[in-house]
Amino acid sequence: MPDIDETHDISRPPWVASALSHPVFPLQNLPFGVFSTAAEDPRGGVAIGDEIFDLKRALEAGLFTGPARDAAAAAAAPTLNAFMALGKAPRAALRKRLFALLAEGDEAAPARALSATLLHRADACTMHVPAAIGSYTDFFAGIHHAYNGGVRNKRNPPLLPNYKYVPVAYHSRASSICPSGTPVRRPNGQRKRVDESAPSFGPSRNLDFELELGVWIGPGNALGEPIPIARAGEHVVGLCMLNDWSARDVQAWEYQPLGPFLSKNFGTTISPWIVTVEALAPFRRAQPPRPEGDPRPLPYLWDEADQAGGAFDIGLEVLIRTTAMRDAGVAAHRLSASNVKHLYWTLAQMVAHHTCGGCNLEPGDIFGSGTLSAPDRSGWGSLSELSEDGTTRIELPSGETRTFLEDGDELILRASAQREGYATIGFGDCAGRIMPALALG
Amino acid sequence: MPDIDETHDISRPPWVASALSHPVFPLQNLPFGVFSTAAEDPRGGVAIGDEIFDLKRALEAGLFTGPARDAAAAAAAPTLNAFMALGKAPRAALRKRLFALLAEGDEAAPARALSATLLHRADACTMHVPAAIGSYTDFFAGIHHAYNGGVRNKRNPPLLPNYKYVPVAYHSRASSICPSGTPVRRPNGQRKRVDESAPSFGPSRNLDFELELGVWIGPGNALGEPIPIARAGEHVVGLCMLNDWSARDVQAWEYQPLGPFLSKNFGTTISPWIVTVEALAPFRRAQPPRPEGDPRPLPYLWDEADQAGGAFDIGLEVLIRTTAMRDAGVAAHRLSASNVKHLYWTLAQMVAHHTCGGCNLEPGDIFGSGTLSAPDRSGWGSLSELSEDGTTRIELPSGETRTFLEDGDELILRASAQREGYATIGFGDCAGRIMPALALG
Repeated sequence: MPDIDETHDISRPPWVASALSHPVFPLQNLPFGVFSTAAEDPRGGVAIGDEIFDLKRALEAGLFTGPARDAAAAAAAPTLNAFMALGKAPRAALRKRLFALLAEGDEAAPARALSATLLHRADACTMHVPAAIGSYTDFFAGIHHAYNGGVRNKRNPPLLPNYKYVPVAYHSRASSICPSGTPVRRPNGQRKRVDESAPSFGPSRNLDFELELGVWIGPGNALGEPIPIARAGEHVVGLCMLNDWSARDVQAWEYQPLGPFLSKNFGTTISPWIVTVEALAPFRRAQPPRPEGDPRPLPYLWDEADQAGGAFDIGLEVLIRTTAMRDAGVAAHRLSASNVKHLYWTLAQMVAHHTCGGCNLEPGDIFGSGTLSAPDRSGWGSLSELSEDGTTRIELPSGETRTFLEDGDELILRASAQREGYATIGFGDCAGRIMPALALG
Repeated sequence: MPDIDETHDISRPPWVASALSHPVFPLQNLPFGVFSTAAEDPRGGVAIGDEIFDLKRALEAGLFTGPARDAAAAAAAPTLNAFMALGKAPRAALRKRLFALLAEGDEAAPARALSATLLHRADACTMHVPAAIGSYTDFFAGIHHAYNGGVRNKRNPPLLPNYKYVPVAYHSRASSICPSGTPVRRPNGQRKRVDESAPSFGPSRNLDFELELGVWIGPGNALGEPIPIARAGEHVVGLCMLNDWSARDVQAWEYQPLGPFLSKNFGTTISPWIVTVEALAPFRRAQPPRPEGDPRPLPYLWDEADQAGGAFDIGLEVLIRTTAMRDAGVAAHRLSASNVKHLYWTLAQMVAHHTCGGCNLEPGDIFGSGTLSAPDRSGWGSLSELSEDGTTRIELPSGETRTFLEDGDELILRASAQREGYATIGFGDCAGRIMPALALG
């Protein structure tokens, strides 16, 4: 794996004490994000243990030179679009320099001397969406989720004929993407049960989550100039977690023939840190061979190197905490555990497909992967799957049950990449709590 | 009609000679746009006859005061998002001042004295997309287009059950919206004919246009705060024409279950001038009563004032010019003539629906109306309708025939609002010519 380098070396301890063996943001992670403090406006930073390293102040202190300096200047801004536009080489140069500045050793001396200025306690900061998101595209690449939906819709076979040929996707809504922690209001909308003769307008009765990976895009392409699959990986900056909140009753009524709209655009929650593809290099793996009988991808979606190392082994989990659990001081309950490896299409295949007709991607665009359900029930990534469209009640340790989300429920997505001999790389929480719908009238 | 005022007075001639009885951009139109010259960068301007009035220079010359000055400053920028954020009052104040500056009379003296500085010949300027478009939502509110599609798909009844309840829409792609005149490359994509066992990748064989109205949005709403229908009209800045180019073969194969994606995102052409709702006040009309038996819209979509004057009477036409016609110096041929009045939903209903679950609209967002077909064949707004999915060849006066678009074809959308006693308000061309697909491999 050519991208594994000294920035993955676990024998180098950080001088930032909280980062030592940190389960989410160790020295080997170094994700980029945008934060603000009570006193200061949003600017770029890097998570390190329980602190945030202030790129703006580090830049002002003259800690960077050359390509790392250019990248640090872009990553210090209130939105990281320019940073995402830079591409891999300056980003990797900045990562190497950050590693050197934060690892024990002589090179760290200038940063260490300024630690009181350069480090903020993360829990005293506010995180923001890290880019002005131009466009948000949501894929449907979790094949087990697609299959489960087909089963519930009594399709035989459950997958539609295009699924194994087309990395199916739709355009979703960029304006309503929120950082983790933003409350999510239950939407009002048109719903019609099969036993009702006409729709009514009111609060969604079937509010759901979707466990998705978010993919940050840059540099992108000019309109009319597709990105060939062999170059597609160069346009993926990093990953986050993404909860594609879904109002299933609204969705069922509205989605024909043009796809989901209001059922998905009332809010999408992301974890605010961009975990770079450089940090995730040790967790790349071969795309699993397709099951016997599945078609080979068309040539524009096929690249040997992508097949050999374009997938990721990253563990995922979904947790719920109801109001009763919160009041009782009980920890969140794990609803599901899955893995990014269950994607049917690689990120490079998504990029190549998205641009094959000429559509232009821009720095700061984001993709959702589609719901990342595991093959078995313990890893299903939505309540519509777990409750079989509301027909099976899910038991919680608090004695409560759920089919869909209730007001006050908090839903938390987490990711953790683990491999023997490497530091564990976490993504940070992707959390949101449901507020009651606005009263009508 | 309360919004008809002195800026619609046809007894006031302009001092700009080319604007006198101009069929598209008379003194009573005053649309806003963004232009550049060979020497100078993009900035805001106003179309007047065959000229563009330079708002940046007019501002520098001190021609505006008060709210009109604030609006002029926002409208002079390289993108008009801040102008769209202002809302109606400053925009209307600027319109009144522009009318006074460009009409014969004493108030025009300071502008007239600077005419050599303030006016550019439009044909020597380049027009740009007038905003940084945050999000592009495409509605499906042309009921005759929806009906025709159902007939072709052999649905009985042709309209889906939700059509008359839901202003159906989907999120489309903002990054690939282009100003009129930008060539459009035929996309490659996956296509599968019913007689083929598997899809292949190659140039779309069924490239189509769609005759749509574009709707510019501002000021918009905060996430979680719906815009009630009675206030929805305040969030529509103005209109343009929009060609939602569509690769029908790609669409047919990809669109289930999440809607159109690559079949629509390779390029969308708009006419570059924002014709304001103030300019169009004389062309408002009552929304036609729904046919007997159609359901009454749900309360969140119902407003008496909107029903009484929320629709528009604006004539539309579609013209085609093939390479052979261009080489022969023949004028473009009219394929279709329709009218905005055929929309099943008003613009206010679109705004109210889009935000009813809390989705936030932002200044500079754009809506497409959906294909604006008239009830009869002479006004159908796409080739899939006119050629009945390619089964009927359309005869052109050049002796050529078409089912779908061929390379070199230019497609032009036009709009013209006409009413006795008022100046004719045009939108300017929405034109694009098809380039051959990129060679594969």
